[in-house]
Amino acid sequence: MKLTTLYSDLNTDLKIIEKELEASIQADSPVLRQASVHLLQSGGKRIRPVFVLLAAKFGNYDIHVIKNAAIVLELIHMASLVHDDVIDDSDLRRGAPTIKSKWDNRIAMYTGDYIFARSLEVMSNIKNPLAHQLLAHTIVEVCKGEIEQIRDKYDFNQNLRTYLRKIKRKTALLIASSCQLGAIAADVEENIHKHLFRFGYFVGMTYQITDDILDFTATEKELGKPAGGDLRQGNITLPVLIAMKDPAIKARVERVHENTSKEELAELLQLINTSGAIEKAAELGNAYLQKAFEVLAELPANRAKKTLYEIAKFIGKRKY
Amino acid sequence: MKLTTLYSDLNTDLKIIEKELEASIQADSPVLRQASVHLLQSGGKRIRPVFVLLAAKFGNYDIHVIKNAAIVLELIHMASLVHDDVIDDSDLRRGAPTIKSKWDNRIAMYTGDYIFARSLEVMSNIKNPLAHQLLAHTIVEVCKGEIEQIRDKYDFNQNLRTYLRKIKRKTALLIASSCQLGAIAADVEENIHKHLFRFGYFVGMTYQITDDILDFTATEKELGKPAGGDLRQGNITLPVLIAMKDPAIKARVERVHENTSKEELAELLQLINTSGAIEKAAELGNAYLQKAFEVLAELPANRAKKTLYEIAKFIGKRKY
Repeated sequence: MKLTTLYSDLNTDLKIIEKELEASIQADSPVLRQASVHLLQSGGKRIRPVFVLLAAKFGNYDIHVIKNAAIVLELIHMASLVHDDVIDDSDLRRGAPTIKSKWDNRIAMYTGDYIFARSLEVMSNIKNPLAHQLLAHTIVEVCKGEIEQIRDKYDFNQNLRTYLRKIKRKTALLIASSCQLGAIAADVEENIHKHLFRFGYFVGMTYQITDDILDFTATEKELGKPAGGDLRQGNITLPVLIAMKDPAIKARVERVHENTSKEELAELLQLINTSGAIEKAAELGNAYLQKAFEVLAELPANRAKKTLYEIAKFIGKRKY
Repeated sequence: MKLTTLYSDLNTDLKIIEKELEASIQADSPVLRQASVHLLQSGGKRIRPVFVLLAAKFGNYDIHVIKNAAIVLELIHMASLVHDDVIDDSDLRRGAPTIKSKWDNRIAMYTGDYIFARSLEVMSNIKNPLAHQLLAHTIVEVCKGEIEQIRDKYDFNQNLRTYLRKIKRKTALLIASSCQLGAIAADVEENIHKHLFRFGYFVGMTYQITDDILDFTATEKELGKPAGGDLRQGNITLPVLIAMKDPAIKARVERVHENTSKEELAELLQLINTSGAIEKAAELGNAYLQKAFEVLAELPANRAKKTLYEIAKFIGKRKY
């Protein structure tokens, strides 16, 4: 089953959002336009807009109001991806060349800035001051998370706490904000939009942990980029953190650098994959998922709640 | 005379802004904190906050409301400087090492992102939707200007029109917005805040043209970085555009690249300095200044108006 079938009743509204996303990044500058369109067309699951729309279903759902929140969050996400690829020196994302590889780092930096700036333009259509505070705070935290990721690269002595804080800032908060912002844009009462934030946070943690596991277990074809990329780039994720409890594995991990050979990396992935670390990482991912379900159970019953449940379940089990 | 003596009666309020600027970029991450503080301490004229405060004097001046606009604009300016230094590969700014040289490009990219994100947090304290639209639009234009600057590097066939559009986007709009935003934050009526925008735009054009001239005429000590840096980096500014009307100069300019020797560059600067191009560039800068004075003349008489006049005059004449 595909993720998109879970929310096929949102298709009409998602098409509106897709169109406006396209319109919002139009630019006179050919380079900027090409780079932005390239990014947009390389797809992505639009999971943040989906969360915005579903959360809005708990209140006064008007797509012409809600859409702004969805577009802002997707644009912020896209901008952060472009900057991420500069940081990680990544040449491929979702099977397509990254902007930094197709053009260069400078163009990637400014394309990211431009898309981010465009998100602010859309944001200025949102009237609620609470929404602005929420978004600004989220963006600050995302930046902090990225800086921590740079700082902690190839630091083999970091611990679970720093890892969890990083993925909270990098991923979970943006999903949590998508849920809360959708709800706020639909005038949902405070108690409920705060619940939706917590739901998004727990789902986001599961999402990133699963992502980090897949970097070890999925094939290059499934990932759209070579497996083990995180480790090679010095991003110490949950499976590695757990596997490094075995001193023999730790010693080998500590030898990893940017130019570690494909063969050596494959051997190390194999070692981590069979160390039991993947299963333990999945357990933690599942613990967050259960928390998400608990929060969801407290929300009023409606069709959106059912869909959020299905999406969360899918995210916990996704294979790529 | 120093610029700061022109607005010494703003000192108390500028100190408040300086303190809040410092507070607003505090971060747990040592790298981020050090990089941001380094940037803040390397100074700058805080000319944008000054314009915000002076424009606000045309309305209900309350520093505790106005300060947000001033801080937002200075933070946006600072963030753009950090990204500029990455683009231009600059090692020095105002005599101090740039973030990209003291740390690296990745840290500079995220420090810029972080400071920019912080500006959004401050912005969320501003209630007026018009202010948000104005700021978002300005930021989009600044990004476009930067992308154009990258695109046009070492393009020796660009014309006056593209140059003027670029400096409008890169510099003049942010100063124009400072004037307008200060006025809006002080509930100044539309007719007046639009006038202040136009005043800021014309002053901003003069400011950048003067800056571009100084890159040819000032000493390394005055600039805080080697003279001729723009030309070496392939930024074709007004003096070069005018000087290139002489085919002999054009032929020599076209040979400039990143690694042009210091001697060759000095010779070329000398050639441009004595070609009459500097005087013609200054004439255009002065034409914008006269426009600024004309707009100013239509504004209500008060002390702020007098100060704006003095600052504009200073900007037109500044030697570094």
